[in-house]
Amino acid sequence: MVDSRFYTAAGPFSVAELAELSGATLGAGAAAEKLLIDVAPLQTAGPEHLSFLDNRLYLEAFVNSGAGACIVHPDLAARAPGGMAVLLSEGPYKAYALAASAFYPPAKPEPGIAKSAVVAAGVVLGDGCRVEPGAVIGEGVEVGARCWIGANAVIGAGVVLGDDTIVGACASLASCIVGNRVHIYPGARIGQEGFGFAPDPAGHARVPQVGRVIIHDDVEIGANTTIDRGAGPDTVIGRGCRIDNLVQIGHNVELGRGCIIVGQAGISGSTKLGDFVAVGGQGGIAGHLDLGAGARVAGQSGVMRDVAPGATVGGYPAVPIRDWHRQTIAIAKLLKRKTG
Amino acid sequence: MVDSRFYTAAGPFSVAELAELSGATLGAGAAAEKLLIDVAPLQTAGPEHLSFLDNRLYLEAFVNSGAGACIVHPDLAARAPGGMAVLLSEGPYKAYALAASAFYPPAKPEPGIAKSAVVAAGVVLGDGCRVEPGAVIGEGVEVGARCWIGANAVIGAGVVLGDDTIVGACASLASCIVGNRVHIYPGARIGQEGFGFAPDPAGHARVPQVGRVIIHDDVEIGANTTIDRGAGPDTVIGRGCRIDNLVQIGHNVELGRGCIIVGQAGISGSTKLGDFVAVGGQGGIAGHLDLGAGARVAGQSGVMRDVAPGATVGGYPAVPIRDWHRQTIAIAKLLKRKTG
Amino acid sequence: MVDSRFYTAAGPFSVAELAELSGATLGAGAAAEKLLIDVAPLQTAGPEHLSFLDNRLYLEAFVNSGAGACIVHPDLAARAPGGMAVLLSEGPYKAYALAASAFYPPAKPEPGIAKSAVVAAGVVLGDGCRVEPGAVIGEGVEVGARCWIGANAVIGAGVVLGDDTIVGACASLASCIVGNRVHIYPGARIGQEGFGFAPDPAGHARVPQVGRVIIHDDVEIGANTTIDRGAGPDTVIGRGCRIDNLVQIGHNVELGRGCIIVGQAGISGSTKLGDFVAVGGQGGIAGHLDLGAGARVAGQSGVMRDVAPGATVGGYPAVPIRDWHRQTIAIAKLLKRKTG
Repeated sequence: MVDSRFYTAAGPFSVAELAELSGATLGAGAAAEKLLIDVAPLQTAGPEHLSFLDNRLYLEAFVNSGAGACIVHPDLAARAPGGMAVLLSEGPYKAYALAASAFYPPAKPEPGIAKSAVVAAGVVLGDGCRVEPGAVIGEGVEVGARCWIGANAVIGAGVVLGDDTIVGACASLASCIVGNRVHIYPGARIGQEGFGFAPDPAGHARVPQVGRVIIHDDVEIGANTTIDRGAGPDTVIGRGCRIDNLVQIGHNVELGRGCIIVGQAGISGSTKLGDFVAVGGQGGIAGHLDLGAGARVAGQSGVMRDVAPGATVGGYPAVPIRDWHRQTIAIAKLLKRKTG
Repeated sequence: MVDSRFYTAAGPFSVAELAELSGATLGAGAAAEKLLIDVAPLQTAGPEHLSFLDNRLYLEAFVNSGAGACIVHPDLAARAPGGMAVLLSEGPYKAYALAASAFYPPAKPEPGIAKSAVVAAGVVLGDGCRVEPGAVIGEGVEVGARCWIGANAVIGAGVVLGDDTIVGACASLASCIVGNRVHIYPGARIGQEGFGFAPDPAGHARVPQVGRVIIHDDVEIGANTTIDRGAGPDTVIGRGCRIDNLVQIGHNVELGRGCIIVGQAGISGSTKLGDFVAVGGQGGIAGHLDLGAGARVAGQSGVMRDVAPGATVGGYPAVPIRDWHRQTIAIAKLLKRKTG
Repeated sequence: MVDSRFYTAAGPFSVAELAELSGATLGAGAAAEKLLIDVAPLQTAGPEHLSFLDNRLYLEAFVNSGAGACIVHPDLAARAPGGMAVLLSEGPYKAYALAASAFYPPAKPEPGIAKSAVVAAGVVLGDGCRVEPGAVIGEGVEVGARCWIGANAVIGAGVVLGDDTIVGACASLASCIVGNRVHIYPGARIGQEGFGFAPDPAGHARVPQVGRVIIHDDVEIGANTTIDRGAGPDTVIGRGCRIDNLVQIGHNVELGRGCIIVGQAGISGSTKLGDFVAVGGQGGIAGHLDLGAGARVAGQSGVMRDVAPGATVGGYPAVPIRDWHRQTIAIAKLLKRKTG
């Protein structure tokens, strides 16, 4: 199914192996030894493919699927067509993620430093690093083992990278300390000076930005996303955060563990997000706010006040999500009354 | 008028030639043989310039213009000042576009591969390609004729480019198949992994992204725009689409032919746009939606439901545009009543 | 306090010196000769640090601070703890900016042209320029004195840079004239063609973009921000403007002096901003509008009409800010009435 110019599936794996890899349990009568060669969507999967059902919208596709095996919630397993091996999981998407990662494990960098890369004197790279053509690594940089520095990326002086970290093509890093297994996508800008100045009609006055960006382990930072360094304190991205493309993160922002920031969202300076906060696409959060652990912000919302832990907000200005939905309905009704 | 450091006008062209090139017809008494050397706005044009009137806002400027010739709708031609040659067109802006392109045709790349470019062994470039300094072209890449790869651009392994395609400075491409006459602007990011993972407090689980980006002929993709590759299916950009700067397009999105996506708009994963859909600046569209052919989305709107073919929507959440305007008026009235 | 891998404080400076540098006056009894080695926040400052109080929110931190000296408004000076030297200023943040810049002056480029930089034949660089590895400078470019061209940046043919201008890593410039002391952050895209075409179902027709971008002195342009060149007129950025990250500025836009454009804001084609206009984060401004001098646009607002000088607007569509706040309150009340 995949384009061999870009991808090659590992495997094959038996149904039993995939059940184990994905933490699923084999359904009754599943052909445990059947070999599967790839993953595929329900609609196009054949007998040699593994598929999954996570959303009831696709139930009919499941019932009619030709997939050789399928990961599914136990409640729906009885609807499986004859001949399909079912792998039972309470979290089918997570289980699918694990199985698919067996077929397509993260690419490993082929070690080597391209001739046209420029590595400053005295820089020590860990074992197994790959530095692609045109990449520039500045003075005093420390790079861990098995890092992958993409073509034309720029690692500024003094930056520290942990092990197994990937810096995409044309990305640039400065004034930052980056953990292990971090993935920075192409064109991301990390650690430039924040938007700090004292406004003045006679000429806005520069405020030096002398903090850093601290990126903990297992973070992903999307393409062309920008993360400014702190003004004095640091900007901090907690372990396991997933940041999408074109996101803006201002100086002194702190993200807890596992936050999810969807594309084009923006977080203004000095705002703090607790663990596992989620911000929808194009959402905006004003500066100097606190969003408690597990808070959720709807896409395109504008958050102008603190958000309590676990609360979900939406709208502009953002209010509790239920109030926002009711506002929307009330405005629609108002319109009907006025024009009815 | 233009800065000769950057541009040189072709020509001169006679009024008759420009009428033919632009599909306009000569007005009564127009001096068909008069030579024009450039285009210029109504306000600053002289006798040697071609101008155009497309928007009635500028009617007064037209009446007082010193332009030697002007493209104008037949209904307004009688208002032309004496001495101005009129070129009649039902679509003056389109006609102007064609005439102006005669003076300023697309730049042709001067062929050659810069010494500092890095082209992987075995890559075959079509005739007449230009590869600028610092560009990096990976293994297995196929490049058509007369392509122009900008300085420090990165073309990842296996990528295919058609003929006459331009990749701007510092752009990066991966896992994509690109057609003919495509123009990718500086800093665009094409084909990186989409934002796909199974959320989990124990650590969000990676979902491999093994689709591609398919870009059909005659597409333009703006500066620093990001287009993620598909998760399994492909992300598809239809023929002739125009995508502005800083746009985000998620994995598995499909755009029909001729769509217009204005700056900073975002289209979430798996959403499908029919032919000639237009999305205004900063508009946001949720995932898994269908927008029918010819649908239009107002700037900054937040689309959370399917949009019917030909419908225009606006607001947050987006509703039919007429309802949105009425909402705006109703809210203003509500305010007056409460405070009046 | 700072990470010595990235920063080194100048100094020390005496309290009296810092008062003079910052335009503050020494409070009664301040130890004028005391030497300070760095700046620090109120909460963490020690006797050798200078701090500041600008926001009454932090009054308690001030009262309890261990800072050796602090810049503060005269009205609050009496609250200073014993032993703290107070520096009195009507504008403490501006004064702090000046003092902090003494400790951390703008970095000066170490002159030199990297071996892997590619500078076209005939280009003349002013004295003291630094051109980092992989930077590409095209034909006919003019570069003033003490400019700093970052790694892998691309300066297109014919571009002009004044003195003391910085171009960040991986940024690209084309068709632009740039003043003195301009700072362009990494990944910014300046001078590419604007989003100009005549829409047509038979194929959108290209409209040549033959203007420039003119950037006056003392401007800052954020990371991954995009500024398109004019279509025929120029795009103009006035002296001293501060533009944050991921901002989009369309063709023919004109910004007056000292405008402040916060992250992810977008300004559509041909709109004109007077002097000292401020646009909040994610704000959007439609095309062909005029915003008078000193106008202010709230974050995330959508401006669809002209804005008078000095006016503040907010909302979507944007209205006078007071009306927007009242709308928000009225909608909340409407909801209460309907559900109460």
